Amino acid sequence: MQLYRNFTLCFLFFLLLAKVSQAQPVFKVIPLGVKGGTDESNLSSYMLAPIHSDNYVCLDAGTLNFGLQQAVKNGTLKGFAGTILKNNVKGYLISHPHLDHVAGLIINSPDDSPKNIYALPFCIDVLKTHYFTWKNWANFANEGDQPTLKKYHYTALDTAKETTLDNTEMTVKPFLLSHSKPYQSTAFLIRSKDDYLLYLGDTGADEMEHAQNLYRLWQAVAPLINSNKLKAIFVETSFPDEQPTKQLFGHLTPSLLMKELDVLGKMTDAKSLKQVYIVITHMKPSAEQVEEKIRKELETQNKLNLKLVFPQQGKLLLF
Amino acid sequence: MQLYRNFTLCFLFFLLLAKVSQAQPVFKVIPLGVKGGTDESNLSSYMLAPIHSDNYVCLDAGTLNFGLQQAVKNGTLKGFAGTILKNNVKGYLISHPHLDHVAGLIINSPDDSPKNIYALPFCIDVLKTHYFTWKNWANFANEGDQPTLKKYHYTALDTAKETTLDNTEMTVKPFLLSHSKPYQSTAFLIRSKDDYLLYLGDTGADEMEHAQNLYRLWQAVAPLINSNKLKAIFVETSFPDEQPTKQLFGHLTPSLLMKELDVLGKMTDAKSLKQVYIVITHMKPSAEQVEEKIRKELETQNKLNLKLVFPQQGKLLLF
Repeated sequence: MQLYRNFTLCFLFFLLLAKVSQAQPVFKVIPLGVKGGTDESNLSSYMLAPIHSDNYVCLDAGTLNFGLQQAVKNGTLKGFAGTILKNNVKGYLISHPHLDHVAGLIINSPDDSPKNIYALPFCIDVLKTHYFTWKNWANFANEGDQPTLKKYHYTALDTAKETTLDNTEMTVKPFLLSHSKPYQSTAFLIRSKDDYLLYLGDTGADEMEHAQNLYRLWQAVAPLINSNKLKAIFVETSFPDEQPTKQLFGHLTPSLLMKELDVLGKMTDAKSLKQVYIVITHMKPSAEQVEEKIRKELETQNKLNLKLVFPQQGKLLLF
Repeated sequence: MQLYRNFTLCFLFFLLLAKVSQAQPVFKVIPLGVKGGTDESNLSSYMLAPIHSDNYVCLDAGTLNFGLQQAVKNGTLKGFAGTILKNNVKGYLISHPHLDHVAGLIINSPDDSPKNIYALPFCIDVLKTHYFTWKNWANFANEGDQPTLKKYHYTALDTAKETTLDNTEMTVKPFLLSHSKPYQSTAFLIRSKDDYLLYLGDTGADEMEHAQNLYRLWQAVAPLINSNKLKAIFVETSFPDEQPTKQLFGHLTPSLLMKELDVLGKMTDAKSLKQVYIVITHMKPSAEQVEEKIRKELETQNKLNLKLVFPQQGKLLLF
């Protein structure tokens, strides 16, 4: 009887431990910029590392320095913004070459340390021919207009394979997105050991883009959701629902995002999908209170009871 | 005797009035960004208008929206940042196409109103072929990659003539600067009625650039200083004196600026030059306390007792 009681207690203890360990975060993210335009101090960029590492990459690089300053001010990071960028950001993953996703990288390049820029070839091509060109900025990269200063190394990603993120404990697999045809963007599936995080750059809805990019992406990540390996999805909602269809410019609204998540919902079990944090990025503050409007529309339409997260610049997120 | 006394009093009164009226400011400037790099929230841009007008131009456009937000927060301006940009900024004068001088213009373009972009042809060429290209940003201008959205109208300046700044009470005459040969930059001499303000984009010293651009500029404005018509000179000091000569990249240090102002001093009478505000722009915050170092070095070397001004983002300046 005593043995039985001990065994039961032991079993309950391990069950509790398993539960607690399941709830333990595996990724940390420091948003350096969260908006989709206008405010130059707060444009898309997310510092990401496994929870016990200080070797980060930046997912997009719209704002870096001012975001780091805010993270230091909030106590999320310690030190001088420029030094953190040099020492702790080991690479940049660029979803597409629109300026609100690369301005921080270019502006900070004179004071940065050597590292890789990871992107699909279409994106590297624009960085090479339109930004690091000497005509509008010194060429700090290793390819393109001569002389090449070779601080940055372009690393072309391939949608067919997983690529190691140098000097970090992470890998990346890219997926093509459609961002107002014929323009493209990228989703990055990041892996650390057996845990995953998905970051989408700017994207239109499949129905608006007459494409299947999101459908294929959802298909690829659904098994990771069902096995509770995918911890978070970062996805844009640029405009409120009132935005005219003809003026979406390859972006999502709350109702378009929720329709897409319904598609994902049909591929996954409801309980597992509810465990995934849905991080809303890239709201465009084009008029007063528009961000609040987008937030309310998302919350109202959240029929699947997903865990919506509204990131703030410099404030730590754990997943 | 009584008549004589009255006459003397009258004369003194008019003299005093003349003196007071001479001291009245004629220009107002709202710095939207004052730094020369790294911090994306505070890059070169100065809103300028005659004192009694709300029709501004922006001298460079590194940071716009966040600078306007700060100006509103400080009580310098009233309203929503995006609305002020639309309604009160009537045009952009771009000194050269480095990203820290145009990022704000590009980022804000989707929500801006139609207006002119004034620049020398070398600069317009880069805006056309490297920024507003559809590949890295929608083409909001009236020339370049098709389709042209025609919100902005490129207005090529000519160093041989004065150009009207549409919808303002000002004109501009441009001067070529050397910014790390063969790259060029521009100084803008702005006129409102018979008053002048001089804004220099990034520039190296003549001795470093093996050029005479600054010498010729000083020659052109010296008569305006001697006649007390030039109210302020905006000029960069990017690095402290410790910056190695080989790493100036077409910029000034405190001692290089003071040498240049000595040249100007030899062309002007000392009393008149002392009336001109020298506004220090474009300090690069590449390390901790470097801006304070530049400031101290300038103040120590200010043998001509010039009126040095250190602009702050969003804080009104009167000249």
